[in-house]
Amino acid sequence: MKDGRKISTAVIRRLPRYYRYLGDLLDKDITRISSKDLSQRMGITASQIRQDLNHFGCFGQQGYGYNVELLYQEVKHILGLDRSYNVILVGAGNFGQVLINNQNFAKRGFDFVAAFDNNPDVVGTNVGNIKVMDVAKLTDYISKNRVDIAALTLPSGVVQDVSKIVADAGVKGIWNFSHDDLRLPHDVIVENVRLTDSIMTLSYKISEDEILRRAVRDVW
Amino acid sequence: MKDGRKISTAVIRRLPRYYRYLGDLLDKDITRISSKDLSQRMGITASQIRQDLNHFGCFGQQGYGYNVELLYQEVKHILGLDRSYNVILVGAGNFGQVLINNQNFAKRGFDFVAAFDNNPDVVGTNVGNIKVMDVAKLTDYISKNRVDIAALTLPSGVVQDVSKIVADAGVKGIWNFSHDDLRLPHDVIVENVRLTDSIMTLSYKISEDEILRRAVRDVW
Repeated sequence: MKDGRKISTAVIRRLPRYYRYLGDLLDKDITRISSKDLSQRMGITASQIRQDLNHFGCFGQQGYGYNVELLYQEVKHILGLDRSYNVILVGAGNFGQVLINNQNFAKRGFDFVAAFDNNPDVVGTNVGNIKVMDVAKLTDYISKNRVDIAALTLPSGVVQDVSKIVADAGVKGIWNFSHDDLRLPHDVIVENVRLTDSIMTLSYKISEDEILRRAVRDVW
Repeated sequence: MKDGRKISTAVIRRLPRYYRYLGDLLDKDITRISSKDLSQRMGITASQIRQDLNHFGCFGQQGYGYNVELLYQEVKHILGLDRSYNVILVGAGNFGQVLINNQNFAKRGFDFVAAFDNNPDVVGTNVGNIKVMDVAKLTDYISKNRVDIAALTLPSGVVQDVSKIVADAGVKGIWNFSHDDLRLPHDVIVENVRLTDSIMTLSYKISEDEILRRAVRDVW
């Protein structure tokens, strides 16, 4: 980023972990740390850590290591966490309620400011401290309020249309919890959370592991 | 896998997507597909698709493409989805309830068979069709029943101890929804779902995007 190079997705995906570990160190009043020590805590090699952080212009000092506070602030800045984000929820079902009630998001500057649903039984009820609005008011709300991120906890099939409405109204960040791959303009940023993909990755590894075990048993 | 080579995590993470798209094609009675056509639907390059699938010994035929049914069955087999998995839930709070009530898991062969909690108000209540048991009965239950996967929807701090109990009792697959990095024996497979990491990836991309926009504005 410092010199305009594109950072790989794998490095970006590791940044929140650095942020978490550095925050833990600060909580324990640890003010400096070597890449070796950080590597043991995080289970990443020290050279990987140096490489990752060099991408962002964070260089540890020989014989001193990293200044934890400075590094924490830099990673926080890179992650865009030195500001807050207004988040709306579309789909106020059980999963949506879990998101709104999770305090970890607000702690990091992600504030749920509104919720929408199309179910008349749900519209008008409270989720956390937020009164659920009719999804028909989505465009109007976005045009009148700052919305940085729309969290879509919607069933497959309807999510594509809703994501288009949200994007057309000007929201640049979409947090998609459905399985559908959203087709949206290139300037809209989509982050997908797919729980069935995740559990299938687990079953892949379990099966692979059992195949290896059987192979070892056959050899011995 | 076919020849014992280690498959990269990136390829493995794409497999559930292939599985989803191939399932959709079957639903639409599409029996064969070229890598080019599949690439347009999935938004991956055709050469990437050929490379991914070659890893698993799936070769399309020149001028014919892939047989959708065969490829679907092969990906299903690779993902370990031609069998079922018994899943227990530890932590029957809101998130746990969302997991148990989500029908997509059962459809793919992941069956929630038991749930545990330490809250006396929750123990004995029903989540979906499952009666929540006291977490003290965890080891006993696992010793008497086949458990393939433990889904841990627990707060940071307690999850490490519970994961150790579950692993010591013989469960080989852990689906971890907390932020803690679990320290477990190497033969235990852990899949992490971290929602705050996910939303931080989104804020990273939004900030990066805004920096680029500002840079472009400054130049013009």
